[in-house]
Amino acid sequence: MKIQDGQRLVFIGDSVTDMGRTRNGDAPSEGLFEPLGKGYPHVVSGLLNAFYPERLIRITNVGNSGNTVRHLKDRWQRDVIDLKPDWLSIMIGINDVWRQFDMPQIPEAAVRPEEYRSTLRELIVRTKPLLAGGLVLMTPFFIEPNPADRMRARMDEYGAVCKEIARETEVLFVDTQAAFDRILQYRHPSYITWDRVHPNIYGAAILARAFLKAVDFDFDHGISGEPPVSA
Amino acid sequence: MKIQDGQRLVFIGDSVTDMGRTRNGDAPSEGLFEPLGKGYPHVVSGLLNAFYPERLIRITNVGNSGNTVRHLKDRWQRDVIDLKPDWLSIMIGINDVWRQFDMPQIPEAAVRPEEYRSTLRELIVRTKPLLAGGLVLMTPFFIEPNPADRMRARMDEYGAVCKEIARETEVLFVDTQAAFDRILQYRHPSYITWDRVHPNIYGAAILARAFLKAVDFDFDHGISGEPPVSA
Amino acid sequence: MKIQDGQRLVFIGDSVTDMGRTRNGDAPSEGLFEPLGKGYPHVVSGLLNAFYPERLIRITNVGNSGNTVRHLKDRWQRDVIDLKPDWLSIMIGINDVWRQFDMPQIPEAAVRPEEYRSTLRELIVRTKPLLAGGLVLMTPFFIEPNPADRMRARMDEYGAVCKEIARETEVLFVDTQAAFDRILQYRHPSYITWDRVHPNIYGAAILARAFLKAVDFDFDHGISGEPPVSA
Amino acid sequence: MKIQDGQRLVFIGDSVTDMGRTRNGDAPSEGLFEPLGKGYPHVVSGLLNAFYPERLIRITNVGNSGNTVRHLKDRWQRDVIDLKPDWLSIMIGINDVWRQFDMPQIPEAAVRPEEYRSTLRELIVRTKPLLAGGLVLMTPFFIEPNPADRMRARMDEYGAVCKEIARETEVLFVDTQAAFDRILQYRHPSYITWDRVHPNIYGAAILARAFLKAVDFDFDHGISGEPPVSA
Amino acid sequence: MKIQDGQRLVFIGDSVTDMGRTRNGDAPSEGLFEPLGKGYPHVVSGLLNAFYPERLIRITNVGNSGNTVRHLKDRWQRDVIDLKPDWLSIMIGINDVWRQFDMPQIPEAAVRPEEYRSTLRELIVRTKPLLAGGLVLMTPFFIEPNPADRMRARMDEYGAVCKEIARETEVLFVDTQAAFDRILQYRHPSYITWDRVHPNIYGAAILARAFLKAVDFDFDHGISGEPPVSA
Amino acid sequence: MKIQDGQRLVFIGDSVTDMGRTRNGDAPSEGLFEPLGKGYPHVVSGLLNAFYPERLIRITNVGNSGNTVRHLKDRWQRDVIDLKPDWLSIMIGINDVWRQFDMPQIPEAAVRPEEYRSTLRELIVRTKPLLAGGLVLMTPFFIEPNPADRMRARMDEYGAVCKEIARETEVLFVDTQAAFDRILQYRHPSYITWDRVHPNIYGAAILARAFLKAVDFDFDHGISGEPPVSA
Amino acid sequence: MKIQDGQRLVFIGDSVTDMGRTRNGDAPSEGLFEPLGKGYPHVVSGLLNAFYPERLIRITNVGNSGNTVRHLKDRWQRDVIDLKPDWLSIMIGINDVWRQFDMPQIPEAAVRPEEYRSTLRELIVRTKPLLAGGLVLMTPFFIEPNPADRMRARMDEYGAVCKEIARETEVLFVDTQAAFDRILQYRHPSYITWDRVHPNIYGAAILARAFLKAVDFDFDHGISGEPPVSA
Amino acid sequence: MKIQDGQRLVFIGDSVTDMGRTRNGDAPSEGLFEPLGKGYPHVVSGLLNAFYPERLIRITNVGNSGNTVRHLKDRWQRDVIDLKPDWLSIMIGINDVWRQFDMPQIPEAAVRPEEYRSTLRELIVRTKPLLAGGLVLMTPFFIEPNPADRMRARMDEYGAVCKEIARETEVLFVDTQAAFDRILQYRHPSYITWDRVHPNIYGAAILARAFLKAVDFDFDHGISGEPPVSA
Repeated sequence: MKIQDGQRLVFIGDSVTDMGRTRNGDAPSEGLFEPLGKGYPHVVSGLLNAFYPERLIRITNVGNSGNTVRHLKDRWQRDVIDLKPDWLSIMIGINDVWRQFDMPQIPEAAVRPEEYRSTLRELIVRTKPLLAGGLVLMTPFFIEPNPADRMRARMDEYGAVCKEIARETEVLFVDTQAAFDRILQYRHPSYITWDRVHPNIYGAAILARAFLKAVDFDFDHGISGEPPVSA
Repeated sequence: MKIQDGQRLVFIGDSVTDMGRTRNGDAPSEGLFEPLGKGYPHVVSGLLNAFYPERLIRITNVGNSGNTVRHLKDRWQRDVIDLKPDWLSIMIGINDVWRQFDMPQIPEAAVRPEEYRSTLRELIVRTKPLLAGGLVLMTPFFIEPNPADRMRARMDEYGAVCKEIARETEVLFVDTQAAFDRILQYRHPSYITWDRVHPNIYGAAILARAFLKAVDFDFDHGISGEPPVSA
Repeated sequence: MKIQDGQRLVFIGDSVTDMGRTRNGDAPSEGLFEPLGKGYPHVVSGLLNAFYPERLIRITNVGNSGNTVRHLKDRWQRDVIDLKPDWLSIMIGINDVWRQFDMPQIPEAAVRPEEYRSTLRELIVRTKPLLAGGLVLMTPFFIEPNPADRMRARMDEYGAVCKEIARETEVLFVDTQAAFDRILQYRHPSYITWDRVHPNIYGAAILARAFLKAVDFDFDHGISGEPPVSA
Repeated sequence: MKIQDGQRLVFIGDSVTDMGRTRNGDAPSEGLFEPLGKGYPHVVSGLLNAFYPERLIRITNVGNSGNTVRHLKDRWQRDVIDLKPDWLSIMIGINDVWRQFDMPQIPEAAVRPEEYRSTLRELIVRTKPLLAGGLVLMTPFFIEPNPADRMRARMDEYGAVCKEIARETEVLFVDTQAAFDRILQYRHPSYITWDRVHPNIYGAAILARAFLKAVDFDFDHGISGEPPVSA
Repeated sequence: MKIQDGQRLVFIGDSVTDMGRTRNGDAPSEGLFEPLGKGYPHVVSGLLNAFYPERLIRITNVGNSGNTVRHLKDRWQRDVIDLKPDWLSIMIGINDVWRQFDMPQIPEAAVRPEEYRSTLRELIVRTKPLLAGGLVLMTPFFIEPNPADRMRARMDEYGAVCKEIARETEVLFVDTQAAFDRILQYRHPSYITWDRVHPNIYGAAILARAFLKAVDFDFDHGISGEPPVSA
Repeated sequence: MKIQDGQRLVFIGDSVTDMGRTRNGDAPSEGLFEPLGKGYPHVVSGLLNAFYPERLIRITNVGNSGNTVRHLKDRWQRDVIDLKPDWLSIMIGINDVWRQFDMPQIPEAAVRPEEYRSTLRELIVRTKPLLAGGLVLMTPFFIEPNPADRMRARMDEYGAVCKEIARETEVLFVDTQAAFDRILQYRHPSYITWDRVHPNIYGAAILARAFLKAVDFDFDHGISGEPPVSA
Repeated sequence: MKIQDGQRLVFIGDSVTDMGRTRNGDAPSEGLFEPLGKGYPHVVSGLLNAFYPERLIRITNVGNSGNTVRHLKDRWQRDVIDLKPDWLSIMIGINDVWRQFDMPQIPEAAVRPEEYRSTLRELIVRTKPLLAGGLVLMTPFFIEPNPADRMRARMDEYGAVCKEIARETEVLFVDTQAAFDRILQYRHPSYITWDRVHPNIYGAAILARAFLKAVDFDFDHGISGEPPVSA
Repeated sequence: MKIQDGQRLVFIGDSVTDMGRTRNGDAPSEGLFEPLGKGYPHVVSGLLNAFYPERLIRITNVGNSGNTVRHLKDRWQRDVIDLKPDWLSIMIGINDVWRQFDMPQIPEAAVRPEEYRSTLRELIVRTKPLLAGGLVLMTPFFIEPNPADRMRARMDEYGAVCKEIARETEVLFVDTQAAFDRILQYRHPSYITWDRVHPNIYGAAILARAFLKAVDFDFDHGISGEPPVSA
């Protein structure tokens, strides 16, 4: 597994990352009392500790509900650079797209593809050299199986931008849309999410699984060394 | 993995199972809006759906905070038999022991080993034949690394009773204490739990992992069939 | 307009009808302090009074969140017959379908088409002769433009059942799905609803408009007789 | 209908306009989650979207409870000019009058006719040239049928001032008092309002209807082009 | 003053009497912690104790919001007879009238004059002989100066019924409407009440003054016997 | 009665004056919705309006819980002078004394007699010339009948200081202690107050009566000119 | 110390005993999470455990706010006998007396001396033989130093009744009034209590000390056997 | 007893000292309404007043939850020096140690031994000369009987640092760990504390007893001079 003992991992993003993380002013969420919210960073923290107890990894959540990439840029220095992470995970773009559909009458609330691409690229280029570990870029997603849905199609565009940036900047890439599409073969979106965006624990586990694979997490780790669990 | 598509899995236990499950009168907790609390049944539900999306499994939580095996007996018909589970998971005994140490002046609040053994055995013998799937018996635990601690020692006795019953009745067995002992090699109890009993998400993931191994959950399941997640 | 001065109009249905109507035990919602919730019955009450001030119409809301047609049947005597309405409006079926998709693991929560058809038909046949005014049957809907979406397709089946029953029993029929489809030509579902089921005020107005057309509401009523509003 | 696709409509006024609009600091209320309160701007937004789905109109509510025209003047730059509306609707004057009757001992809380006239006129003259669409001036009102009631008589004076200003400045005019007087022929004020000022949904619909007529809203719009709603 | 040391005075009525009296199940309100609400019974209790400290009078409030005379009849045994009062004060009728105007569509909510007269008369005839002190009948009122207002005119009818009953049954009579009319010569209703029914402290004092005059309260009582208050 | 139509009356003091007056930042309490708290200023406002409806008097409460005369001095400019009262009523000193007994270990919380006298005198001398009406100085009090009680004896000292200042500065004087002593002849303190300081409505009426006498309030005012209240 | 290892001690009384004990339906308060309220039973439990850690004593609080001896009688079987205490401590009478002074107009709320004596005596006679340990009778008290205060004088009568009963029935006796009188030599009542009845922590410690002396608690116990605490 | 009449005693520390003390901005907690929290300062205040009523001692609590010695240093001027105490009691170090075990991934949250020693020593050296009474240094503790527990062992190191500093600086020393160890001979930690750090009332009494012994508190004080409490 790529994340080493003693490293710090920071998650930044929107409400899917935030998911009710414990707020204390502007301080990042980390430490005692399960402050990471109830989304995928929370599940990742559980699995990292359960499977790799011998590695001590500091996990910090700075996701903010409602954020677009424009918001990330505004708070990048304080919420990413100043924290000196070894690993950084970014998942942004859902609100950049969503506002084009749920509030089309307020155009300045959304972020168009060109601004999305250039801002996200700039943040990654600026930050990657500072990371001792690495950077994971997760696509935005829309838990909608119909590729012709206008918002799904637009979200796929932004996902493609992510993929392209990941290739150019040589960072780890997670196709979260593909991860959700797998379960959409069997279940309707309403099984996983109330609004096709905010996943329940099933979706949080799907995102955590996808993230962990990207960092070569070994789900068989520690099996042999531990006591038998079945009599 | 032993739990099949279309089966129902019921978790019964104490506050470690309950963990704030959504209450609606006396109804069992299941269905929409993540009603399973924030403990290991919640994590198990996330992982089952994320790794085995093609299997539809009905997961029901009937854990009640503060319960001893005596309480389970009182509500067994309504909360287990009437639900017609295919799989049943039981984790009970922490309060049976704890009350001997935190309220020694109120002896009727605790359950002594003989009553624990006979009641638990009777419930399992009565129920096992009704289960199309199987029964998982999880030991109680105390997140205390010192085997000489009086409460840890007593808890180990109850765990041993579980192991013995599991062998006699031929049900699946999970040694939760052993699962916690692995991480206690590296971390102090206060990293996982405030009171050495109620685990945070790290501990919930430890319990979920132990449970899932007992039912032959394959953490590599679905890897080959799914789209690559890293560019 | 078909609803006459002095008549009573009762709305029954699920959460789309309920929409937070003021509860006072099991009593129906009507009278002072805008007790009809914030959905289409509320908008209908506003428009009836604003356009036809000379007609005094008693409007009662007995919608209950989460209801299927099976729940309606259970409370039909108390919540419909005993109220002695002149007009009855029914909109049911969304939960009958939804539970098949968001809780497929709990099959008894949903209502399958045959039961839906027979129960609904029976209620209408039983009630129509008691109504001095008439009965309006509104289809369930899913604010999803893709006809191939599995839940939309199923909802359309239930809508077709409604249309058929309306024809057989000769009651007024409102195709709510068609009413929503009109706006979906221009807007994404997320403009109208958070979850593709519960409409905001735009959707409440769409439903109110469709209902009012079915009872021959004249939006030009009273224009000539009233003082000019523009200088 | 005069309001065109892509235009912005701003409502300013007192508590009758405010009606509990969602506050977020000093930001105007608009966008998702029905933030316009429960008064006539809310009803207008519903009807505009339900009848003219093909037009995308941005509706913003900046009504503030307790405001007189003096308060409007103080916040005019921030709450009107800076928002760059195409259409502006003003309804002010109720508190200017009311304070003369409910708090006569605190004379500085009210606004006398001359200040009312000059302030309102100045705001309209300053703003009209900036509007690509138009300006709607709605009179204040008192839901009291007795013209000899001292507060009603005074309110009528302020309404006459509005009418005069509307004629001089050539803006659209809505006689809200006349709209209420129509229903007062049939109903007592207590049917529409608790305090003869704050209307319930019936009154909100009356105001919305009067506003919409002033902008040539066609209630038959879209009838022919849409699917039949009755079987 | 007619009320003697050691006597019990019970106030019954509607929300004007209730005015938020402290509830403890169905028990009448009396005793410590100012349980009488904030209306005229509260003011009466203050003035009785301040002016006649040498008389100990037990004051009990059993007013219930929303009550008509029909409600009084239903609870008369428990809330009047069983309390064994020496003095009884009744003020009822506002809701009997009001419901005819604010909820005309729900006719069973109001009480028509004939029922009002016969019920009220019957209660008084039944109770008067049981009272060692006496009975005070207060008229209902509407704080509206226009005698032609439809609700004021109707309220005056009910007030006339009270006067007639008081004469026939020879009980003390308080014309509360006349008491309010005095201040309406100088002030608008909105100075005293939000909704022309529920008076503020000014109105509570007006009612208390009228009640106290009816029982020959002497506002100069105790002046000579007490220490001078001004230096 | 000395207070004339059109005058403003300001009450300043401690918690006995404050009694939960409605707070809006630092603004004084006055106007709609009974903002004067539930103490004697509230009762005074009720009686002034009920007995002298033809006089319009602006009543403002700036009492603050916990205040000593030292606190009054700190806020005198803002809370008295800037309000430009015609009449000023001062009741202060209870906390100046009380802190000597309930927190003797924190001596700086109390105000000793010399400071009390000089500060109070200075405030009165400074303010009296600015008042078109007059100034009422009310003594502090302790609702304790035993003159030998140490706190009562001390309070009497402060009352004597008030009397002396009133004589020197020729302002109206109210001996509140004497007013309470009258009722203490008949009742135990616990009948009027929970803590021998904060009076219930009986005590508020006692204080209001004493205040009103000091300003020559005529309780028979208006009797002849008004309609008979008893049949 | 008279209370032995393994014994159960029950405290019954009024609000001074209750002091906010944790309620769980009608169950007595005992066990985890400091359920004994914040009064003297709570302090006693702390001191017993701190000074006599080797003795395990079960402490149960069944004090109820507002109780008189009449209330105790009504619940004696459930709240005393059924609990099978070894030791019982009773402190009752404050409300029996207080109601004579704070609610003289409601005589049935108080308990007169004869009923107090006979009821209390009967309860003690009935219960003493059932106690393996003993019974402690604590007097009621009034934290008022003036013996001529009418309520203090009356409370002293009830205290004398207690003393007499204690002598006759040969139970342990605690003169709580004397314990408070000691501190009243130095401090005013307001230093210890807001209302001369409910003591703060100083008073709770005074009561606890008096109780403990009655059971021969040795404050030097364990000193020699324990490690030195000062370097 | 060393603390004299008229002296001020300040307690500083972490959550064990704080224990919910009443907050009023940054002001220290002291005075009326039991503001000292529910921990040992609260118990100390009760016992000082109950046993030594003739001494008036001002007790101030400035403990802050979560504090380490580094936090104390930051607020030392405001929360210690500026208060001009005669006596100062310090108990700090639990969080300094705990953070090493419950948040090992966030190393800056803990304070290592060298910084602990030098900071604590510096604060004591700076402050001792300013104290007219004296300084009490209480060790941190961990309510864990196993000396090999890693956190207990580390806490013992910090306790040893305290002892050493106390000897060097010649201040009073309290070995709180030893005080808890005495009861741990008989009871399990869970009898006293939920988390092995925050003591219940039993533990608060243990700490209070240890503190009081250090200042030569005489538990037999006043016995002879006071009235007999047992009949």
